[in-house]
Amino acid sequence: MSTDMSGEFAIFNRRESEARSYCRSFPKSFVKATGSELTDSDGRSYIDFLAGCSSLNYGHNDPDMKQALIDHIMADGITHGLDMHSDAKAAFLTAFEDIILKPRGMDYKVMMTGPTGTNAVEAAMKLARKVTGRRNIIAFTNGFHGMTMGALACTGNASKRAGAGPVSLNDVSRMPFEGAFGADIDSLRIVEEMLSNPSSGIDAPAAFIIEPVQGEGGLNAASTEFMQGIARLAREHGALLIVDDIQAGCGRTGTFFSFEEMGIEPDLIPMAKSFSGMGLPFAALLIKPEHDIWGPAEHNGTFRGNTHAFVTARVALEKFWKDDSFQHEIAEKAEMLREALQRIADEIPGASLNGRGMMLGVDVGSGDLAGAICARAFEMGLIIETSGANDEVVKVLAPLTTPKDTFAKGLSILHDAARDISATHKIAAE
Amino acid sequence: MSTDMSGEFAIFNRRESEARSYCRSFPKSFVKATGSELTDSDGRSYIDFLAGCSSLNYGHNDPDMKQALIDHIMADGITHGLDMHSDAKAAFLTAFEDIILKPRGMDYKVMMTGPTGTNAVEAAMKLARKVTGRRNIIAFTNGFHGMTMGALACTGNASKRAGAGPVSLNDVSRMPFEGAFGADIDSLRIVEEMLSNPSSGIDAPAAFIIEPVQGEGGLNAASTEFMQGIARLAREHGALLIVDDIQAGCGRTGTFFSFEEMGIEPDLIPMAKSFSGMGLPFAALLIKPEHDIWGPAEHNGTFRGNTHAFVTARVALEKFWKDDSFQHEIAEKAEMLREALQRIADEIPGASLNGRGMMLGVDVGSGDLAGAICARAFEMGLIIETSGANDEVVKVLAPLTTPKDTFAKGLSILHDAARDISATHKIAAE
Amino acid sequence: MSTDMSGEFAIFNRRESEARSYCRSFPKSFVKATGSELTDSDGRSYIDFLAGCSSLNYGHNDPDMKQALIDHIMADGITHGLDMHSDAKAAFLTAFEDIILKPRGMDYKVMMTGPTGTNAVEAAMKLARKVTGRRNIIAFTNGFHGMTMGALACTGNASKRAGAGPVSLNDVSRMPFEGAFGADIDSLRIVEEMLSNPSSGIDAPAAFIIEPVQGEGGLNAASTEFMQGIARLAREHGALLIVDDIQAGCGRTGTFFSFEEMGIEPDLIPMAKSFSGMGLPFAALLIKPEHDIWGPAEHNGTFRGNTHAFVTARVALEKFWKDDSFQHEIAEKAEMLREALQRIADEIPGASLNGRGMMLGVDVGSGDLAGAICARAFEMGLIIETSGANDEVVKVLAPLTTPKDTFAKGLSILHDAARDISATHKIAAE
Amino acid sequence: MSTDMSGEFAIFNRRESEARSYCRSFPKSFVKATGSELTDSDGRSYIDFLAGCSSLNYGHNDPDMKQALIDHIMADGITHGLDMHSDAKAAFLTAFEDIILKPRGMDYKVMMTGPTGTNAVEAAMKLARKVTGRRNIIAFTNGFHGMTMGALACTGNASKRAGAGPVSLNDVSRMPFEGAFGADIDSLRIVEEMLSNPSSGIDAPAAFIIEPVQGEGGLNAASTEFMQGIARLAREHGALLIVDDIQAGCGRTGTFFSFEEMGIEPDLIPMAKSFSGMGLPFAALLIKPEHDIWGPAEHNGTFRGNTHAFVTARVALEKFWKDDSFQHEIAEKAEMLREALQRIADEIPGASLNGRGMMLGVDVGSGDLAGAICARAFEMGLIIETSGANDEVVKVLAPLTTPKDTFAKGLSILHDAARDISATHKIAAE
Repeated sequence: MSTDMSGEFAIFNRRESEARSYCRSFPKSFVKATGSELTDSDGRSYIDFLAGCSSLNYGHNDPDMKQALIDHIMADGITHGLDMHSDAKAAFLTAFEDIILKPRGMDYKVMMTGPTGTNAVEAAMKLARKVTGRRNIIAFTNGFHGMTMGALACTGNASKRAGAGPVSLNDVSRMPFEGAFGADIDSLRIVEEMLSNPSSGIDAPAAFIIEPVQGEGGLNAASTEFMQGIARLAREHGALLIVDDIQAGCGRTGTFFSFEEMGIEPDLIPMAKSFSGMGLPFAALLIKPEHDIWGPAEHNGTFRGNTHAFVTARVALEKFWKDDSFQHEIAEKAEMLREALQRIADEIPGASLNGRGMMLGVDVGSGDLAGAICARAFEMGLIIETSGANDEVVKVLAPLTTPKDTFAKGLSILHDAARDISATHKIAAE
Repeated sequence: MSTDMSGEFAIFNRRESEARSYCRSFPKSFVKATGSELTDSDGRSYIDFLAGCSSLNYGHNDPDMKQALIDHIMADGITHGLDMHSDAKAAFLTAFEDIILKPRGMDYKVMMTGPTGTNAVEAAMKLARKVTGRRNIIAFTNGFHGMTMGALACTGNASKRAGAGPVSLNDVSRMPFEGAFGADIDSLRIVEEMLSNPSSGIDAPAAFIIEPVQGEGGLNAASTEFMQGIARLAREHGALLIVDDIQAGCGRTGTFFSFEEMGIEPDLIPMAKSFSGMGLPFAALLIKPEHDIWGPAEHNGTFRGNTHAFVTARVALEKFWKDDSFQHEIAEKAEMLREALQRIADEIPGASLNGRGMMLGVDVGSGDLAGAICARAFEMGLIIETSGANDEVVKVLAPLTTPKDTFAKGLSILHDAARDISATHKIAAE
Repeated sequence: MSTDMSGEFAIFNRRESEARSYCRSFPKSFVKATGSELTDSDGRSYIDFLAGCSSLNYGHNDPDMKQALIDHIMADGITHGLDMHSDAKAAFLTAFEDIILKPRGMDYKVMMTGPTGTNAVEAAMKLARKVTGRRNIIAFTNGFHGMTMGALACTGNASKRAGAGPVSLNDVSRMPFEGAFGADIDSLRIVEEMLSNPSSGIDAPAAFIIEPVQGEGGLNAASTEFMQGIARLAREHGALLIVDDIQAGCGRTGTFFSFEEMGIEPDLIPMAKSFSGMGLPFAALLIKPEHDIWGPAEHNGTFRGNTHAFVTARVALEKFWKDDSFQHEIAEKAEMLREALQRIADEIPGASLNGRGMMLGVDVGSGDLAGAICARAFEMGLIIETSGANDEVVKVLAPLTTPKDTFAKGLSILHDAARDISATHKIAAE
Repeated sequence: MSTDMSGEFAIFNRRESEARSYCRSFPKSFVKATGSELTDSDGRSYIDFLAGCSSLNYGHNDPDMKQALIDHIMADGITHGLDMHSDAKAAFLTAFEDIILKPRGMDYKVMMTGPTGTNAVEAAMKLARKVTGRRNIIAFTNGFHGMTMGALACTGNASKRAGAGPVSLNDVSRMPFEGAFGADIDSLRIVEEMLSNPSSGIDAPAAFIIEPVQGEGGLNAASTEFMQGIARLAREHGALLIVDDIQAGCGRTGTFFSFEEMGIEPDLIPMAKSFSGMGLPFAALLIKPEHDIWGPAEHNGTFRGNTHAFVTARVALEKFWKDDSFQHEIAEKAEMLREALQRIADEIPGASLNGRGMMLGVDVGSGDLAGAICARAFEMGLIIETSGANDEVVKVLAPLTTPKDTFAKGLSILHDAARDISATHKIAAE
């Protein structure tokens, strides 16, 4: 980004912290957003394949959510109510119970945590430690769980960890995610042997924390066998299973929860990102009732239970999850996505696909290459980002509601961008 | 709260976590809120002396903020934009620069952290450690800074700390807040001697973190001398000064920042609660430019920079802080508050006032007594909470915009409640 | 010390680590030692007022201990027996029970830890945490307990703590020793208020660890009232009381245990230094029987229970502690010491005495001055060291068995050295 | 062990801590020891295949060491000299330089740490962290490094770790030792991939700490390739290599250092156990000169440099290491040992040999079986212990000086014991 102190961006250069990130990849100022498109201050529109990092699974400014929110505001509905009872909260909880929990045979308490994923993860970690009386949490290579001290300890990324300065990120043991050492080494066996060896030095775990698909870690998708194996190990070792469905949940992989067809029952499920439906800050921790041993206010916070988000989240559930039509729509687009990305991958030596459902990307083998493709795509009107330990995966996180023609157009831009850059890279390499 | 599984509250009992708190003190369901009043599902209205724990300094659903937000939503303005540039963010930053920073001669970068106080505190702690290369943070008795692992380590409250289970809350040294050991022991001298003794065992600090008025710790208000002393010690020992103005800021004590008449220049200022104006989740860390050494995305998060909050926060600044009329209004009400609370205190043996400006309470000497007064007040139509290590302070956090007659009415209810309960307690004691 | 790579000291310069310390203050090579005198390689003899930092309370090479040890070796007695039973161990334990424990009405188990003070302290810390299920240990300003990670966390000295590099020394809270903030601030009251305030941020303690006289921290001697106060607070808060008698024990203050006339019953007592009698490596942790919940080998170590030390330790007990004659002898010399040091202090502006019994020093107000006095004394044939946070105390730790004329001679040298240096300093200051 | 409070052992039951361990396996009281034999209070003699856990590599009470020590004591040589220069220390250092370092082309500084292995390990950990400015230390499964907080964090054994109570053992990452997951998974590759993946969550290491043969962890012997691989990874990642040669060093594997034929150059080498020659408490840390950045006294301790041990250690070097005859003798006995143990293993289904040189054992697959064999052997006059995560290895650690006929006799007893117990077990299983 320009460090120019005049012009449209001067205020950001002058007043916003150096910690800012996405604005550096997409150096425009955005003024409007509908569905799968963003418009910048010059009136140019962009197809959005980033979707607020999966926070906008239902697209920008869904008209029904908008209307419900406007109605709520105009009626002087509660905006901020701490964690007091409200009609909006009751309506949300009722919809969540009826539309999500009951049909899936799930019985969970909902803890309104601070409205960010990291806060829900921190609450899960604290509760798992409280329930078990143990300290150690097993986290996985390439896992990403947040930036506050507890969640950061579970996050693998070295540059993120560096943000803690000289302070230790303790009480977490690191294990290999499925495939971490290649296809010939069975990660599950390693985890199992480390836990069964009483001299391994791995303390008895309070919990395992795992993302079924690693959103920031390169779209690595765990198999059903791996997730079941981890669930079994957790059970055998008296640990809780925390499934972090913050990025992969809310339909992203094809079902509301990313793990719901895997036959596992997580003890704790942190939810955030698309949980509000419309991109409002909102997070919750789903807790198996037997683990809900919190004392009143033992984990509190001012913005627990964003009331505006209750309104939009309820509409999202009612609009998209009352029957299975939305799931079918996702499945169709996921197939379309896989085919398109495979075509791109086929043209890049060594490239392969990573991910599952509408959470899919192309591992192009190098962060430079992936970054160049995304930068080129942005020039051509597509917002898209990378993922992975070395940013080597071009990651598609389009709104699940993206109309097929828009989706096709976005994928076509991506293909063109990949082709352009590959050609350049090939020439540069020669 | 009733554990009844039928009726209006059944859904909360069935589905919400045991961690919930305020709904237990105020067992009604709220449906509407304007200015300083909340309305429950039975149509009864309550005067609000809690104000979302100081998140609603400008009252509920301020009409100008409401209108601006509705306009933004109807125009399909950005709802969720990660940390990309937007017109709404530029407008907020410009207003903040023009209305708040410049007139006060302050030069700070604004870091959009996750939209909760604890997240802003965690960012401050990480940055202070990164800047200094040190680990130790000096926190104060009765301090409250949040629930995530880093911030919780700075929080003094034992029951909150218990939420972490068996995990240590490390890298924080605890020092006495002003008056912690009574009037005859000078806390500042203790801090000074602990830091100047090379064998005290207190490691060189990365930062001091302090609230000018301790919102949860009993409304203890630091004097200018104490704050200047801490600022001087921080400077002398190469530590950063973090002034947590989350609860005391945004006009609560009479000025925008609670410390602005104290002649100190904090290095880092976490802001949250009323920062959005309307009670939307929003937080930021103000950073002296020389300390803004973050790498891009080194502390990231999905909901940094809630765009709806940019809109309402800008309106709040423009409406209330362009001149000093609002400050005068606060000063008048603060005087009114002090007089009313003094009259209450005069009737309770041993009671005294704690706090500053519109952040004032009556220390009635016992948590049971304070709790009973608040419960009685709620029956009489007033929402009010306690504060303090033993919940012994009846704390008034009315919206700063409360009309004088409403304010008087609320104070009158409080007086009646205190009188009722004191009488009962006196009889019980006899 | 010379960095000369030739000559007598070349081998030390070439091969010994920079961590070495005392050889820098006393740059001679010693070849012989008897009673209170050391002889260097030039045949010059020195009076020893350091006594191995109180490890040689009975002087160098006591003839009875020597003979018993030689007899043991010549008879092929066990040298190294791990923690197996041996006649030498039985004899030591029996003597310790009969001569020390029974007459004092004390009932303790003896844990043979690794033969260093720090190891006994680590064992105490581990056991206190195991017994209470708590983590936090309260240590005091200017406390010194050892160099391994656990004990170092309890040690206040900043330069010692720096040896841990960037690693945190956690799970210890620091409280002021008696008099830490001057005579007008009551340290005990501060400790009490920090522990009774549930929002102080001081977690419930597993233990207090305290030295009745702080050997390295400046010879600060706790009063009976202070020690009783700490013992009471430990009891009230469910914490164990660890009295580190490593430097002050074995007669140094006048009685076998430094606290035995204080009416307190420590839960755990780490012993080392003079415990072997003859300066051999030996340490033990005394444990109240109800706290001896160790599993077999749960804290092990190769050199637990140095058999040679069992032999000499037994002789020391039998020779010096069977009746109260040795205590009377110590009391007389302590009086002689106090008078002599007072005369020295009287000649140095602002100087005062610190300590108790034969553990007494002159606080001369400056590390430079104290160091210069000790260096001058060494030139004149006296080995003596400093103590204190700023090395400002000239510390006398003569063998308790020092003949009175030798003692007088050493004190006279010290007086001369102090006078010489004071004169120089006075001239320099003018 | 009997809990009988009368009889010979009553004093131990009454006064020694429950932490005691070896006396439970060998419930006799020992009174005399020479060479490879121990004699109990009934006059019965035992062949010693435990040798103080490899602290008595030169046997009990070697006559030359004895004589030198007696001469030293009779001449009033220094017993305790803190870390002052002495003739005994100079002689030891000179011998160590001439006999050990120079012939091997090794250049190391010698740090006299507290006289236990754990203290030398703690010093190594502190120094590695200080040198690198990093916190994380890579330790291996089944590693054993000591009982103080720092070293315990590197120790894998769960029951030992439990001794720390509820405190975290932090700043250590655990990696698989060679063969930890069986022959088909390459541990080195796992370590390499964990360190090269920037999102593995393994922080940049200050050091690797590894035992070439794991003395307590089951006699797992690392190959030259593995050790070289770890040395290379340490170098590539800017970490120090700590080779803990406490149990495997001093000739145990056939050469003075266990790694000296592996072509690696450790940065730090903790030595203890047999380093004094005669079983006296003594430890040192060997430091590559460029890492000797300690400040004076930065890691101190009262018993650093046990002067009696200097005397015996010098004799041990001069007597056994001046030429290669002792190495040849060890090699012959090691071959004899391997053959004998192989014969035993051949008779136990599934049994196999673990270890190297005179540090060899039979993995019999079960801790119960191994324990029963050792107990039977003791009845038959042989002192021998188990090793391994489940105590499943019968471990031979005979003095290296054991005469061949005594060695043969001991091995024969072991064979008989194994046969007896196997027969019983086979019958029990049928």
